[in-house]
Amino acid sequence: MPFKIIKKSHRSGARLGLLKTKRGVIKTPFFMPIATRGSVKSLESAELKKLGAQIILSNSYHLYLRPGLAVIKKSKGLHGFMNWSGPILTDSGGFQVFSLEAKNVKFKTPNERKSLVKITDKGVEFKSVYDGSKHFFTPKKVLEIQAAIGSDIRMVLDVCSPAKCSKKPAEQDLEITLQWAKDSLDYKNSKLKIKKIGQIKKAKSKNSALGCLDFLLFGIVQGALYKDLRLKSASELSRMSFDGYAIGGLAVGESPQEMYQVLDYTVPALPKDKPHYLMGVGYPEQIVEAVKRGIDMFDCVIPTREARHGRLYFSQAATGGRQRPGSKFYQTINIRAEKFSQDLSPINADSKLPELRQYTKAYLRHLFAVQEPLALRLATLNNLEFYLQLMSNIRQAIKNSQY
Amino acid sequence: MPFKIIKKSHRSGARLGLLKTKRGVIKTPFFMPIATRGSVKSLESAELKKLGAQIILSNSYHLYLRPGLAVIKKSKGLHGFMNWSGPILTDSGGFQVFSLEAKNVKFKTPNERKSLVKITDKGVEFKSVYDGSKHFFTPKKVLEIQAAIGSDIRMVLDVCSPAKCSKKPAEQDLEITLQWAKDSLDYKNSKLKIKKIGQIKKAKSKNSALGCLDFLLFGIVQGALYKDLRLKSASELSRMSFDGYAIGGLAVGESPQEMYQVLDYTVPALPKDKPHYLMGVGYPEQIVEAVKRGIDMFDCVIPTREARHGRLYFSQAATGGRQRPGSKFYQTINIRAEKFSQDLSPINADSKLPELRQYTKAYLRHLFAVQEPLALRLATLNNLEFYLQLMSNIRQAIKNSQY
Repeated sequence: MPFKIIKKSHRSGARLGLLKTKRGVIKTPFFMPIATRGSVKSLESAELKKLGAQIILSNSYHLYLRPGLAVIKKSKGLHGFMNWSGPILTDSGGFQVFSLEAKNVKFKTPNERKSLVKITDKGVEFKSVYDGSKHFFTPKKVLEIQAAIGSDIRMVLDVCSPAKCSKKPAEQDLEITLQWAKDSLDYKNSKLKIKKIGQIKKAKSKNSALGCLDFLLFGIVQGALYKDLRLKSASELSRMSFDGYAIGGLAVGESPQEMYQVLDYTVPALPKDKPHYLMGVGYPEQIVEAVKRGIDMFDCVIPTREARHGRLYFSQAATGGRQRPGSKFYQTINIRAEKFSQDLSPINADSKLPELRQYTKAYLRHLFAVQEPLALRLATLNNLEFYLQLMSNIRQAIKNSQY
Repeated sequence: MPFKIIKKSHRSGARLGLLKTKRGVIKTPFFMPIATRGSVKSLESAELKKLGAQIILSNSYHLYLRPGLAVIKKSKGLHGFMNWSGPILTDSGGFQVFSLEAKNVKFKTPNERKSLVKITDKGVEFKSVYDGSKHFFTPKKVLEIQAAIGSDIRMVLDVCSPAKCSKKPAEQDLEITLQWAKDSLDYKNSKLKIKKIGQIKKAKSKNSALGCLDFLLFGIVQGALYKDLRLKSASELSRMSFDGYAIGGLAVGESPQEMYQVLDYTVPALPKDKPHYLMGVGYPEQIVEAVKRGIDMFDCVIPTREARHGRLYFSQAATGGRQRPGSKFYQTINIRAEKFSQDLSPINADSKLPELRQYTKAYLRHLFAVQEPLALRLATLNNLEFYLQLMSNIRQAIKNSQY
């Protein structure tokens, strides 16, 4: 079993665990910095290691279109291409197929998008966000793409329904998603059979000793905000032997309360001995709430995207504030605000990174004001350190039975 | 004497030397990476140290306007503000006053600019490139600005004539420049007198032991492309006791041959025991030619600006090319070219920086293609390493009597 639960909280659904991958064992719960196009914006891989990132996420859709798979294959996968030796999770591209199309068009109803992306039971046709060229993704195709990328955790192709989707189309989306999940698993199993003879030969190799397959395949629960659809999705996927289970189609416009409700009834319907991944979430308090509900894995653009807009995340301790019960355990500042122009305190006095201790808030504010590229890097380092430290704190709290 | 010549070439005017500043001894000839707004674009100070930068250049005009002097003073100068402990040279702002105004307006004649920047014998009035606000720079004012910045080498205010300037205005510009040079030196000497009592107390301090003043003040030779004006400028400035002599108003549109001619007659007219600084130059072969003519100091935007456009500099050795007599000793590539899309060779196999050895050209090309900010950083590191290594090679060649 690639996933091992070390400790369960008595007070909530939180779990402390280890997830084995070909390229290393990851402590759960964890957060994945996002390297959409093969680079965590403004950082290089050595900095991700210094930050303590255990695993990063990259994007099948974008890498398939730019730079294309040929050079990634030649580079021995994305690991070689982007010089990152740790584990990588890739999404299937399904989310981008739907969300990036939608970016350029205003829809009257959520279902109108289907006139742009053509979904059949075989797959989905879409136009490249780069040059408008037409492409067709199938469950098999996105697994082949992820095989070329060489990611350690791979996601099935799914149809991501909009948050405010009416029930009928949500139901249709789910049917297709479930069919594609089955197709994906069939494809993986057929590949595994072919590989078996080879695997016996490698039985004593390091990877086999770790007890893990070449990659982990995750199914994705959909169903918009409809309880019966979510439960159906969870139940049917649970009968398929995925290595992990993701919950998709959240953080797409619904309220946090709606999201927590979905987790409240969906997570208990998933296999308890498999890792649970909440895709695209979220703010720190949402991560804390989701861990309580049994989520083990997270990714989100918030720390990196908000860094680029000058929004910095700090723990209350780091800003000298006292943590009162019920108060937020973190705070954010807009470093571009005038009030920081004379603030000679370090960006983060508690950081383990010398650059965040040595440069002042006034300096970072100046870098943003005159649009110096170093601004993005310092802000991104700050926010990713906060998110990764948050996960470390969460793991410690579960270990200490304080969660 | 802050400047010491260790060796002179027998075959050319090249000199090997040491320039003492408050914050360290700099080996000459040297090149200064440009931190216009208090940051070498996309790099942080620790990277400049790794690259072996001995000194950097920053910009009085820009720092005065953004972030303003208050926060720089509070930070104990630019060194504290940008977290750089090595020497810093600041230009006076004169060049920016004239060149940035000109950016926004098309002139029918080079002299038309004077309707925008109002020059009197007291100083120059100009509008901020940021918000159009009016400011007045005098020789004293720019020295006060540089004192607030705390730079180790400071430049006098000058009037930078355009390359194709007709003689009459070039003559007028020079008259003012000479007057301002005298004003600057008078101001420095008056300050020194006030300081003397304090200095005696500090006689045993480290800085005094180094035998250097708090800062070095450089005069600037002007005179456009007119030999008599350049010689007059050099001769009159030589009679004033500046710590070093810059040649300004070059690399502003004239041909390299015209520039070399100016150096051929100007440098010999400068004090031989003082450092010679060719402002804003240039391409590698221009630096080599200028060193032959007795220049010791350089700054230029080329390595950093061209990096941002994907133009990379390499020594011939680094690209595997053989150096034939008469051939260029370096080559450049446009990393954005399609042909690099599958090139898995390292950005620079010979680099001392792991990132330039570990990332491939194909990866860097991809980063440029999808506009990832890491592209700028890797390209900038590559080009600055080339320029700094070039200077190191030049020093070694002079030492070995091969220049």
